Amino acid sequence: MRLKRTHTCGELNASNAGTEVTLTGWVDSWRDHGGLFFIDIRDRYGKTQVVFSSENSQQLYEKAKKLRSEYVIAVHGMVRKRPQEAKNPDMQTGDVEILCIDFETLNQSKTLPFELKDYAEKSEELRLKYRYLDLRRSSLQRNLLMRHQLAQITRSFFTGQNFVEIETPVLTKSTPEGARDFLVPSRMHPGKFYALPQSPQQYKQILMIAGFDRYFQIVRCYRDEDLRKDRQPEFTQVDIEMSFVDENDIMNLMEAYMKVVFKELLRIEIKTPIPRLTFEEAMKWYGSDKPDLRYDLKIVDITSIFRQSEFNIFRSVADNKGFIGALVVPEAASYSRKQVDALNEYIKTVGGHGVAHLKLQSGTWQGGVSKNFSELELNNLLEKCKGMKDGLILIIADTNIEKSQQLLGFLRQKLAEDLQLIDTSKIALSWTIDFPLLEFDLGENRYFAKHHPFTSPKMEELPLLDEQPEKVHARAYDLVLNGNEIAGGSIRIHNRNVQEKMFKALNISKEEAIQKFGFLLEALEYGAPPHGGIAFGFDRMSMLLAGAESLRDVIAFPKTTSALALMEDAPSSISETQLKELGIKLAPKN
Amino acid sequence: MRLKRTHTCGELNASNAGTEVTLTGWVDSWRDHGGLFFIDIRDRYGKTQVVFSSENSQQLYEKAKKLRSEYVIAVHGMVRKRPQEAKNPDMQTGDVEILCIDFETLNQSKTLPFELKDYAEKSEELRLKYRYLDLRRSSLQRNLLMRHQLAQITRSFFTGQNFVEIETPVLTKSTPEGARDFLVPSRMHPGKFYALPQSPQQYKQILMIAGFDRYFQIVRCYRDEDLRKDRQPEFTQVDIEMSFVDENDIMNLMEAYMKVVFKELLRIEIKTPIPRLTFEEAMKWYGSDKPDLRYDLKIVDITSIFRQSEFNIFRSVADNKGFIGALVVPEAASYSRKQVDALNEYIKTVGGHGVAHLKLQSGTWQGGVSKNFSELELNNLLEKCKGMKDGLILIIADTNIEKSQQLLGFLRQKLAEDLQLIDTSKIALSWTIDFPLLEFDLGENRYFAKHHPFTSPKMEELPLLDEQPEKVHARAYDLVLNGNEIAGGSIRIHNRNVQEKMFKALNISKEEAIQKFGFLLEALEYGAPPHGGIAFGFDRMSMLLAGAESLRDVIAFPKTTSALALMEDAPSSISETQLKELGIKLAPKN
Repeated sequence: MRLKRTHTCGELNASNAGTEVTLTGWVDSWRDHGGLFFIDIRDRYGKTQVVFSSENSQQLYEKAKKLRSEYVIAVHGMVRKRPQEAKNPDMQTGDVEILCIDFETLNQSKTLPFELKDYAEKSEELRLKYRYLDLRRSSLQRNLLMRHQLAQITRSFFTGQNFVEIETPVLTKSTPEGARDFLVPSRMHPGKFYALPQSPQQYKQILMIAGFDRYFQIVRCYRDEDLRKDRQPEFTQVDIEMSFVDENDIMNLMEAYMKVVFKELLRIEIKTPIPRLTFEEAMKWYGSDKPDLRYDLKIVDITSIFRQSEFNIFRSVADNKGFIGALVVPEAASYSRKQVDALNEYIKTVGGHGVAHLKLQSGTWQGGVSKNFSELELNNLLEKCKGMKDGLILIIADTNIEKSQQLLGFLRQKLAEDLQLIDTSKIALSWTIDFPLLEFDLGENRYFAKHHPFTSPKMEELPLLDEQPEKVHARAYDLVLNGNEIAGGSIRIHNRNVQEKMFKALNISKEEAIQKFGFLLEALEYGAPPHGGIAFGFDRMSMLLAGAESLRDVIAFPKTTSALALMEDAPSSISETQLKELGIKLAPKN
Repeated sequence: MRLKRTHTCGELNASNAGTEVTLTGWVDSWRDHGGLFFIDIRDRYGKTQVVFSSENSQQLYEKAKKLRSEYVIAVHGMVRKRPQEAKNPDMQTGDVEILCIDFETLNQSKTLPFELKDYAEKSEELRLKYRYLDLRRSSLQRNLLMRHQLAQITRSFFTGQNFVEIETPVLTKSTPEGARDFLVPSRMHPGKFYALPQSPQQYKQILMIAGFDRYFQIVRCYRDEDLRKDRQPEFTQVDIEMSFVDENDIMNLMEAYMKVVFKELLRIEIKTPIPRLTFEEAMKWYGSDKPDLRYDLKIVDITSIFRQSEFNIFRSVADNKGFIGALVVPEAASYSRKQVDALNEYIKTVGGHGVAHLKLQSGTWQGGVSKNFSELELNNLLEKCKGMKDGLILIIADTNIEKSQQLLGFLRQKLAEDLQLIDTSKIALSWTIDFPLLEFDLGENRYFAKHHPFTSPKMEELPLLDEQPEKVHARAYDLVLNGNEIAGGSIRIHNRNVQEKMFKALNISKEEAIQKFGFLLEALEYGAPPHGGIAFGFDRMSMLLAGAESLRDVIAFPKTTSALALMEDAPSSISETQLKELGIKLAPKN
């Protein structure tokens, strides 16, 4: 490099006119106007127009004409104001251009496998293989810069609140949900394995027992599961734990954190306190424990209307402690038969039996199941419509309350999207609290922890844990942003007896508990303080704040849905020597 | 928790006298003075004395008498000034105490397996098993807090310099030094493996090619090697990469970083520019590429004195292009025969044949090899002693120059320790530059990269790479602090042809190069900018700055030298089901 950069490509303006500068970067675009050769030179900071004039130097002009897209150059020249008509108001540096005095080609570029501007027409596979090119796009650069800022804001907020950032190990022990651990064979101890952590849960509790009082970490976690559309095998979380606190202390501090994040990143003032919904309310009103509150469209409970109904399907649901819910949608007044059928089909794809419907037209019931309802039932239903004259009523009924509400939640979300009820400029934050502690798994015929086995039950409900475990609530809380869970946490158990009771309820034997969590159980007996915490999904937060559509757009080197790294070609085969050293053999599944 | 904390245990002073406060923490110590029960309550922030007086409340006093070390309590009480004679100037809060009005025992503690104060008498194994107790010691808390501060200072410095923090993957592809990779079997792609990165080297280069200009990350790296005393299988580095820069740009910026670190953490102003030694100078003068410059004791090259010597051993070394070096040590004038013998033995343990010695006593040569040297040789030697009248001269000779110098370096360090020549209050920073690019490995009979295969040779020496590769120097630089390498980096190759030449010199075939680094080679053809970087050993830096003696004292959950996690018991056995899922079998070595 003969020429040394004096400015970035994003900083020159009219005040620099008349000075000599040197820029370095990529040829973003070029055009030859016969005697004048123009390029835009680009770096992370912006673009600047450079002119090579044959009048000034025929030699430079001829040399410049060989430049092509994505060549790397250093340009030395004189900044000059552009004539009024040539100014480009869309460009940060659009008031000026550089008249080239000297330049150096630092590297060439082959023709790209896809143009940066037409990337959208190319398959994501191709773009992931050439990630270094895709990452040159300004939207991905912007996303990663925002992610960087979010990380700095986060650390500075928690550091300011007396939190200590402490690094926890990556080579750890297999955890409760062991089946989803990535494992690492040990060469020094053949036959034994480390596990990559799904979260530093136990370490952060240990740190509280060690007296660190307030801990945080922006930390990589790992989960080996069949990937859904928007999951990554490695993901990042903002991990937080505090001692001598209750739920309110944690929620209040996290609200302060959210305030700072939205203010500093998006210049948005969010209102606190953030509304809190119990799990029961969230399910009853929105059919989801992470409801999107950017729009209203509450579920209306109409179960009681049909207790005496002659419409058998509904009466049987009402009688069997089921749930019948309606969505009252004035915006869908003009829905066609075909549109209603489509909703019916949609509900079947998500596990429901279908949707009943009827319509109000100028205050009169029309079509669908209206003919199956008695006068009284129709009148009662009308009351629930709160004065609506025209609109569609959609009804789902199921003997399983949670399932019925979940289906209504899906339907609510589908309608909101179809009818564009969502004000995308809105920020809707809410807490979901008072979760059930346990969840019964029919397949395995046992209870599972809805959060994790270290979550404290509400202590006043502890006596129910043996006999009526489904009635016990957790001291847990999730933070929801526009229908996405962005954080989840709980007050932890800090007492060995309670922890053992919890393991018992989860059908984990004493032996298994000691083998898996022996050190934590033991630590609880050496002065464990009351403590609790929370973890934010850092990738998802970044995605939502950047307005990106996929986690892959806020991760520099993401993996595909089948956990492949296409650029570097991982995972890959290893040598026999390596296998031998690790004391393992391949054993292909048949 | 009935009582809520109002203050930490480190913040009360005389100005709080007369106010009611609530503290939470651990019983650090207790003593019963009959009617008055005293405890020190401790948290991360400090300790405060609490008094339970039977006069005030017999009931509280009786309850307090049951408190034992490490119980967790919340104490509500009145702050009062201590009488002058009871003040404790060694305690931050030593001017006050709290008269207890109410308290709550939040948790009990069994008797600890070791007392926090007598920890040093216990084995490190025991302390690692109960790491949560050992971490309560104030020195470990202080170390981890300092590490936290170093991390924040680092991120804030680099963010302020326009660096972007970007997270790179942990599940990656096996790298050149593949034998030292930790491997992760893929469940979704049986028979294939991910590797944990030994450094994000290729990713950071890719980020430069993607145009991010300035990247940093405080990042975990992994190396599966037989652990030496002070190595950890997972370690943290401050990883840095910059585009459009040369060696000086990088070294200058890192000096600014060091200035900030020492200023903010230790209130020490370090002088810049930091001295730079070439590899050759460092070896010739100090026998090490990471010399401890807190003391002088330079090696004196006396090879030429012995070219015509009748002392065969030395003449043959001098004739065969070897190196004869001397350490001239006035401080060792009174060394006994036994002490000299010990040095001789020491040099044998580090691979040498031994040390020759002679003495100056009141300007006259005495003992050792003095009788083997000619008058002229002794006179020439005397000249090298620069006026010393009394002292010990130690000589090492070997036909292998580097080996000879290395042994002298070990001897120099040994003498400095024995004679306490090191001013431990000193900070000696230096750069080592102009390293050889390659290093010949006699065992494998081929060249290896001294730094790594992506390090740029000095371009003016590139023509030598085919025929005289040992003569080529690298554009590499290491930062040395008090004899420890704390950072190493280089300008990278940004041109595919040069990279291929380098692979050829390393005896890496085209096929192997493409299989292992194909994506990087390809990326070099799509507009790779000139770039370079550096990485700091974050654990080692933390250790040196904290004045700790072991890396384990600055890592929250370190592993033993045999890579075991004693607290959580990792690595551990896994189930047959898990093995099956991963498509592997155990194959014990015989």
